[in-house]
Amino acid sequence: MYFATSNRDKLKEARILLGIEVLGTELKVDEVQSLDPVDVAEKKAKAYFEILKKPIFVEDTSLSINALNGLPGTYIDAFMKVLGNEGIVKLLKDSKERAAVVQATVVFVDRQGILHTFIGKTHGNISLKPKGVGFGWDPIFIPEGETRTFGEMTLDEKNKYSMRAVALKKLKKWLDKS
Amino acid sequence: MYFATSNRDKLKEARILLGIEVLGTELKVDEVQSLDPVDVAEKKAKAYFEILKKPIFVEDTSLSINALNGLPGTYIDAFMKVLGNEGIVKLLKDSKERAAVVQATVVFVDRQGILHTFIGKTHGNISLKPKGVGFGWDPIFIPEGETRTFGEMTLDEKNKYSMRAVALKKLKKWLDKS
Repeated sequence: MYFATSNRDKLKEARILLGIEVLGTELKVDEVQSLDPVDVAEKKAKAYFEILKKPIFVEDTSLSINALNGLPGTYIDAFMKVLGNEGIVKLLKDSKERAAVVQATVVFVDRQGILHTFIGKTHGNISLKPKGVGFGWDPIFIPEGETRTFGEMTLDEKNKYSMRAVALKKLKKWLDKS
Repeated sequence: MYFATSNRDKLKEARILLGIEVLGTELKVDEVQSLDPVDVAEKKAKAYFEILKKPIFVEDTSLSINALNGLPGTYIDAFMKVLGNEGIVKLLKDSKERAAVVQATVVFVDRQGILHTFIGKTHGNISLKPKGVGFGWDPIFIPEGETRTFGEMTLDEKNKYSMRAVALKKLKKWLDKS
């Protein structure tokens, strides 16, 4: 089965969680503009399948901040690129409302081209300032029940809250039954 | 020639500016996620041409706010839907930097499927609060040399600053030469 990523860490994680061989791809397709993460992920999965014609899954992460009425949501990559963690925190400077949700949307396209969608969510808060290191918005997201950001945790600690792991485990359960 | 819009006012404006018959379409295609307005408009134009197989042009407007490092840019529709004018102004609450640029990107696809891109830009500022009425972000954009927002102007006054008219006039000039 293919996973639409060229990220080695994500591939390794997927192999471990799914317990099967997972192949990456360097192929890139455009994402559509939509506020609905399922819409974005399903259209991306379809686009990959139309090119590869083989079973493949995609995984898309969105970050919805309550004080921004759900933005950046599916546009998190653009926000990270343009504003970065400092800029995002600055947008919330005067906001007491810090709640946020990260959602991983995994869409698997089977041999027949049928889509199967699995969602993992992690609730949390946006920190007052970036703390720690790590990928993307890790330094500004504090999962519920923690006082530290993802950026201040070890990989093992962070994985306990992984929305991607939740979505991939749902995919595995479905694959095991099929 | 087709114009990828079902908006009667835009069609009328295009007919007048281009001096030729322009047909609308109800057809909708997805826009891609990209911070580059030309990239978004060109891919949209290509997608329309692939379906219609006839000369067509698209017009896309982006609004780049300096204090937000260029956001919302191509994501203006999502920002309007989610935050609205009140919400956008609130993001700039403490910002003395109010400068913004609106860009109209017109992409014409000719009979051979070749793309021709024309840009119109209007510089201005984001108002301290929404004023007046009108479409989209009209109530928060003050064009350079004015003290009023687009929302406080008559259609004729507003048209003097129209980035869309500038781009369409460039298209007309090109069509006249071809």
